[in-house]
Amino acid sequence: MTQLQEETGDMDRPVEPGHFSACEARLDKHMAGLCSVDFPVAVVLPAGGSGERTGLLTPKQFCTFLNRPLISYTIQTFERVPWIQSIVVVVAKESLDLMMDIIHRFHHRNVLVVHGGSTRHRSIFNGVRALSEGEDGTARVKPKVVIIHDAVRPFVEEDFLLKITMAAKEQGAAGAIRPLVSTVIATTLEGYLDHSLERTKYRASEMPQGFIYDVIYQAYQRCSESDFEFGTECLHLALQYCGTNAKLIEGPPTLWKVTYKRDLAAAESIVKETLSQSACVVTGGSAQATELANALQRSMSALDMEVDVISDLIGDNAKSLSKEWNFIQVSVNSSCFCEVGRILGALEEADRALLHPVVIIWVYLNVSEDGSSASEPTGGEPAAMMELATGAKLGNILVYGIQLHHSKEATLWGRSVEKVAQMSCALIRDRSPALTGQLLQA
Amino acid sequence: MTQLQEETGDMDRPVEPGHFSACEARLDKHMAGLCSVDFPVAVVLPAGGSGERTGLLTPKQFCTFLNRPLISYTIQTFERVPWIQSIVVVVAKESLDLMMDIIHRFHHRNVLVVHGGSTRHRSIFNGVRALSEGEDGTARVKPKVVIIHDAVRPFVEEDFLLKITMAAKEQGAAGAIRPLVSTVIATTLEGYLDHSLERTKYRASEMPQGFIYDVIYQAYQRCSESDFEFGTECLHLALQYCGTNAKLIEGPPTLWKVTYKRDLAAAESIVKETLSQSACVVTGGSAQATELANALQRSMSALDMEVDVISDLIGDNAKSLSKEWNFIQVSVNSSCFCEVGRILGALEEADRALLHPVVIIWVYLNVSEDGSSASEPTGGEPAAMMELATGAKLGNILVYGIQLHHSKEATLWGRSVEKVAQMSCALIRDRSPALTGQLLQA
Repeated sequence: MTQLQEETGDMDRPVEPGHFSACEARLDKHMAGLCSVDFPVAVVLPAGGSGERTGLLTPKQFCTFLNRPLISYTIQTFERVPWIQSIVVVVAKESLDLMMDIIHRFHHRNVLVVHGGSTRHRSIFNGVRALSEGEDGTARVKPKVVIIHDAVRPFVEEDFLLKITMAAKEQGAAGAIRPLVSTVIATTLEGYLDHSLERTKYRASEMPQGFIYDVIYQAYQRCSESDFEFGTECLHLALQYCGTNAKLIEGPPTLWKVTYKRDLAAAESIVKETLSQSACVVTGGSAQATELANALQRSMSALDMEVDVISDLIGDNAKSLSKEWNFIQVSVNSSCFCEVGRILGALEEADRALLHPVVIIWVYLNVSEDGSSASEPTGGEPAAMMELATGAKLGNILVYGIQLHHSKEATLWGRSVEKVAQMSCALIRDRSPALTGQLLQA
Repeated sequence: MTQLQEETGDMDRPVEPGHFSACEARLDKHMAGLCSVDFPVAVVLPAGGSGERTGLLTPKQFCTFLNRPLISYTIQTFERVPWIQSIVVVVAKESLDLMMDIIHRFHHRNVLVVHGGSTRHRSIFNGVRALSEGEDGTARVKPKVVIIHDAVRPFVEEDFLLKITMAAKEQGAAGAIRPLVSTVIATTLEGYLDHSLERTKYRASEMPQGFIYDVIYQAYQRCSESDFEFGTECLHLALQYCGTNAKLIEGPPTLWKVTYKRDLAAAESIVKETLSQSACVVTGGSAQATELANALQRSMSALDMEVDVISDLIGDNAKSLSKEWNFIQVSVNSSCFCEVGRILGALEEADRALLHPVVIIWVYLNVSEDGSSASEPTGGEPAAMMELATGAKLGNILVYGIQLHHSKEATLWGRSVEKVAQMSCALIRDRSPALTGQLLQA
């Protein structure tokens, strides 16, 4: 069994603006977590599956969306929880290099990679054992509670993990359940209906599950070869071999398992939606830019995007750089990209786009004295814009441009602003890498 | 009970290039279907749900993606099957106008809309009854087999419907099953694990289900108020009240039910992928356009998009207009949109974009004698392009432009072609309405 510890010590990485909850709510929860979890907790993520059901060649935990493999999203989910000490990922031997590469690329911390066994239970047991025994058989400080989760369930909230952990500590074992989506039926050997189960008496058993370390360890030590081969339910092993009755807790629908190709699209849409809830418009302080920014704020709000208008990213405003995923820089009559360049530089310095692509939209407002037509060419910008965007894309930052002409005619102006708002929302929501560097017309 | 028959007689609508199978394969299946189904078949689609679980205000069957409500996709799925005579949609009273509007807008044929009851079973029975009794109590010619499906399961293939229909005719009842995704457990009253079910002995009961008309009709006539109130399984009613043992047939994963918001994203991604498998490049016949088209064909094929290169859309080539969802018109040194206008006109005349948005990409190849730089402005096109695209969008046709300069330098030229290929694939796959009319630079 090969074990590889990865500790980059990168603790000052910017805090993620909670995937599923506001920043403030998370702070409260952190406090709650810190107060009640005063014992060591570890996570085991079995990731040895072959992913046949997705219809893809790559095992589904390694399938990529928005430039990142699914398993990295799952690891990130647990890394965000301050009271979880370590994460054990169990992978098939042939995926070991790939897994180590993912850990390096996305700066994952406190992740221990362990070889899988020939079945799911053997893999989980390898992961559990690695928490108390080193590769060479030396003892490690085992955690009090171990959470077992799936690498292919990327979305689980901290408060639910807390519920499972506390119930496991008290009862010995706890597991997530969900109502049954379909009626469950028993079939005859010939393929006919035998009977249907009463839906209210049954539940679907999901992940995460939590166990007192000694309970799950002993259950695996005592269980039979046949359990290792065919068993599917850890909770059942705890009951059978340790007499531990698991507490069942209803979880949210986001716990679902990425099983088919369409589930990857669903997971991508969840992440994209989370990244596209708000944008920050930087005006530079000029009156015309501020007027446009305020109009954009109204129009984009009607398109369900919250917009914050600031004049610069200096001082207190700099905090936007560490929490916002989308920036709109308004430039008036200036065809230089220095303002966009400054945002780009600050984001790159903070390694902000490590986990998710960041969008910068350069809105170029052309205010001509004589109110000349909107089709007027802009000269040398397109090529420079493309060059800037090509470089930025290498760092996972997507730069787009939108050009508009100021009009004194209110209807025309309103239409242009509306167009900028629609295009900005679409660019932010689509995050299409192929369209970076384009200068669009509003 | 209000019943409204909708028959537009629009039988010569272009054949859909099979959502899930090649055109040729579908023809074979049609033949198979026509040969074996020599009895009348009808479908009942209960669509009265409130959609609480999607987390959206609109009931999920009326949620829209790619400009069309989910239920219209489901209706279309059944309309494509030549041996299905009629489709009964059962809706809540308050959704009646909306449903009629959908039927009109998307030219659905042979659809009968019926008021729902207070429970799912009462709604299904209303739908079943409407197949043999008119609104005024007059008798109608009842079908031999009735298929019951969900409005929120938009993807079901004809060959699976055929299996269910034939098994129902032979056995009296038949239903789709799927393997269980999660382990099913029984819980104690206090919320603890009681026992887990052996996964191999049970199946999830899904839709569609098929019944001999008299079997399902009698089952509903004989069943109790409590069955109407709490029952969830039609197959069970057929067994209990008619002694009919349903044949269970394993269905494909695409039968899944759109339940949560993420499922809508998954459904959209399935439709988008289906629409984005191929594109047709129209060259106009010039040598330079053909050279570019052939290069695009190679590059886009590497991006998993099959490209057909044709010189025009006349004669035998016109068949592309009735089967292709994506067109790329290459123009050399011509800034007029007459070629794009011709495709547009032909598509509009055939009402091709009624059910799915069609993409037209205008690729403008600028070949200058002196090989001047790529940032050269193109003059008056952008505004004219935008005007054309704005009109086309009203008809569900998305027009985008890409401009490139010919280069005699092979590396530069190769890079430009690659860029056109990448942008074309992205535009086709994203189908973003907000970006139509833009002239992008390669």
